[in-house]
Amino acid sequence: MERKILLHERDIPKKWYNLAADLPSPLQPPLGPNGRPITPEMLAPVFPMNIIEQEVSTERWIDIPQEILDILYRWRPAPLRRAVYLEKYLKTPAKIFYKDESVSPPGSHKPNTAVAQAYYNKAFGIKKMTTETGAGQWGSALAFACNLLGIECKVYMVRISFDQKPFRKLMMQVWGANCVASPSNETEFGRKMLKELPDTPGSLGIAISEAIEEAVHDKTGKTRYSLGSVLNHVMLHQTIIGLEAKKQLEMVGIKKPDVVIGCAGGGSNFAGLAFPFVADKIHGADIDIIPVEPKACPTMTKGEFAYDHGDTACMTPLLAMHTLGHAFVPKPIHAGGLRYHGMAPLVCQGIVEGLMRPVSYHQLKCYESAMIWAKTEGTICAPETSHAIACAIDEAIKAREEHKEKVIIFTYSGHGLMDLTGYDAYLSGKLTDYEMSDAEIKESTAILSGLPKPPAKKTGKW
Amino acid sequence: MERKILLHERDIPKKWYNLAADLPSPLQPPLGPNGRPITPEMLAPVFPMNIIEQEVSTERWIDIPQEILDILYRWRPAPLRRAVYLEKYLKTPAKIFYKDESVSPPGSHKPNTAVAQAYYNKAFGIKKMTTETGAGQWGSALAFACNLLGIECKVYMVRISFDQKPFRKLMMQVWGANCVASPSNETEFGRKMLKELPDTPGSLGIAISEAIEEAVHDKTGKTRYSLGSVLNHVMLHQTIIGLEAKKQLEMVGIKKPDVVIGCAGGGSNFAGLAFPFVADKIHGADIDIIPVEPKACPTMTKGEFAYDHGDTACMTPLLAMHTLGHAFVPKPIHAGGLRYHGMAPLVCQGIVEGLMRPVSYHQLKCYESAMIWAKTEGTICAPETSHAIACAIDEAIKAREEHKEKVIIFTYSGHGLMDLTGYDAYLSGKLTDYEMSDAEIKESTAILSGLPKPPAKKTGKW
Repeated sequence: MERKILLHERDIPKKWYNLAADLPSPLQPPLGPNGRPITPEMLAPVFPMNIIEQEVSTERWIDIPQEILDILYRWRPAPLRRAVYLEKYLKTPAKIFYKDESVSPPGSHKPNTAVAQAYYNKAFGIKKMTTETGAGQWGSALAFACNLLGIECKVYMVRISFDQKPFRKLMMQVWGANCVASPSNETEFGRKMLKELPDTPGSLGIAISEAIEEAVHDKTGKTRYSLGSVLNHVMLHQTIIGLEAKKQLEMVGIKKPDVVIGCAGGGSNFAGLAFPFVADKIHGADIDIIPVEPKACPTMTKGEFAYDHGDTACMTPLLAMHTLGHAFVPKPIHAGGLRYHGMAPLVCQGIVEGLMRPVSYHQLKCYESAMIWAKTEGTICAPETSHAIACAIDEAIKAREEHKEKVIIFTYSGHGLMDLTGYDAYLSGKLTDYEMSDAEIKESTAILSGLPKPPAKKTGKW
Repeated sequence: MERKILLHERDIPKKWYNLAADLPSPLQPPLGPNGRPITPEMLAPVFPMNIIEQEVSTERWIDIPQEILDILYRWRPAPLRRAVYLEKYLKTPAKIFYKDESVSPPGSHKPNTAVAQAYYNKAFGIKKMTTETGAGQWGSALAFACNLLGIECKVYMVRISFDQKPFRKLMMQVWGANCVASPSNETEFGRKMLKELPDTPGSLGIAISEAIEEAVHDKTGKTRYSLGSVLNHVMLHQTIIGLEAKKQLEMVGIKKPDVVIGCAGGGSNFAGLAFPFVADKIHGADIDIIPVEPKACPTMTKGEFAYDHGDTACMTPLLAMHTLGHAFVPKPIHAGGLRYHGMAPLVCQGIVEGLMRPVSYHQLKCYESAMIWAKTEGTICAPETSHAIACAIDEAIKAREEHKEKVIIFTYSGHGLMDLTGYDAYLSGKLTDYEMSDAEIKESTAILSGLPKPPAKKTGKW
């Protein structure tokens, strides 16, 4: 019985897969302030043109430059592992596989796109990248990538995380990034916020605004902004996860999985594993594809499919996505990476088409699952990842009850070694569950009423 | 060019290698309070007899039980990696390989023996294991092993680390261990210490005494103590590192390395990689084998080869080893795992025979090397590991100057994700170097004058 399925370096995928080429109906375009589709030129002050080209591409396969592979080889191909110890514990006939993205130096799937984005920025002549980060997963991934490529990196970190979670900040500093607490004195918007709300803990919305401002205002034109999820090019870069996984399943004689699972905050981890399997589903394969989110931030399961801004300050274009409204502030839960009001448009279009089946989980159940995982497989998972594990356990139990030898695969999106305070809160009984009521959803999404509506009809058979 | 050399699960070593079988002169026996060699029976209240048998064994090869392999498969065989990015940075003709022990769930080589010890204790009918831990590497490894095997685990953690480094304590709790600050109210010795020194930060010496006391005083006879380094059986369990590495070097056509390097605190990480190569050296191979220690705790390079106690309270038998004296308290340096006054007797006998060439490094140089590593290979290493990296870099530069295509191999003993405060101190310029003067060495080792002396003559040709 094979516990680790290891792909040889030479067999790493050489192209990314673009779901936009295969979606039954085309993606709704992002809209500008005038309500009309934005042009690539309008994004040029924010992103380098080679990335904008990927953002709007409908090519099915896009070459991965050799220079990017040369960096990814540090930890890729990532292992596909079989959770034999968990299977035994659950007495399930299901085979549970997980793609281990925790093996990257920053400890999550995030560097797959951070490296690609840093590479394209460098190729476009950019000298400095700015970004925001919440708990620090994304900021540390971009710091890591910029350090290897010799690009300056500036990270605006939400103040409360900056103060309370020093370790990811320290990782960024080891990798040479300049990490500042947001709101900061370094941007106009930051200074304005500090004047109005001197004691604000900060927010991802404010941090995004600061990072974009710094990029756009740099007079040399050599600074650009970077986003770690949501956008099409980010999903694209993450598909290396699922493309590797498909090859690895084939290595152990599995033609297709029955269930594909990923936790979804902005959508990139889920998309990375799932999109290559979504392609198979579009072409007839019977696969249950499940993005998992917290009940405290139920974007896909309870949000509206609408045009909305990606940030609180309404600086970004309008994206057609499931959303809880751009002013939504989720209750504090420990899976910081899953606390986002929106979701990647490519994932949302897939949901509209019925290609994916989103589910939501309570955090206590997720921590329970994480503890079962630590007891059986032995590793300590990220709180985000625990959502995928909770769902995988449920599916494995269902397979047991149905006496079916299902193949289940999920992404182990990151380790939890920097997130132990969440476990502490759980173990000392301080965590509670929270589910948004219908009235709260209605209140939160009321902000969308003045914005354009995308068509939300199903065109396929799924 | 191969960056990762991956051994198949079926090719994992099935036996450990015991250097005691091949040492040119036999090991000096541990001595009891009466100055005479201790008997296995004298150790029986502390360790289970199956482990004591391994401790005194001179068999060359000892079978690894299948049940232990079934646990180790979670992360073993561990990858052998080639540091191609560092080689390029250094412009060296040397090939630098490193055995990556950071991939274990607790993040270091420690679980290799923790799993074996927990297994043997369980097989002997033991229900609870006690141990001490400083910064927490060893405590978390034993907690991990006990959790998987269903044994109770009690860890006495030095109070200052317990208070200042909560994360490894949290890891232990996730793995179900009971971790208490030492000195504690749970033992006689702890209560005595708290009464005499209510504000003491604790010490490894005190914590060892507490852990041994709890094991020895358990009236059910179902509790035993566990040590994470120094002893022969610990070295034995770690040899799986070097045995795997030899197979992996053979896979890329390398018959023997020229230089073998490991950092050494109690000696188990170094021994794990080095001992299988020491065997080759005894049989004629030309290999430079280098244990690396901090200049602030220069046990091997400046200590005496003498009989000394393993703990401060003189509860352990006398061991023949290089030592700075059992009352030695090293200056605070960030490589907590390298702050021990003694060294494994098997390593020390190898040094006496001239089979190994110990060197010492300053911590600033080690952190510099860790930063070069983060910039090139991309990962953040443990402060202990940085000592091996500093030495590997020096050896690679020497190879460049000598125009020699040397093969260098070292253990990447652990990641530094739980040790980022050390990097913070380094990056903010707060770290200093410290080297023990000859007068200080003399003062520190004066305590040995009343103890028996082992013969320290070289018998071999090395």
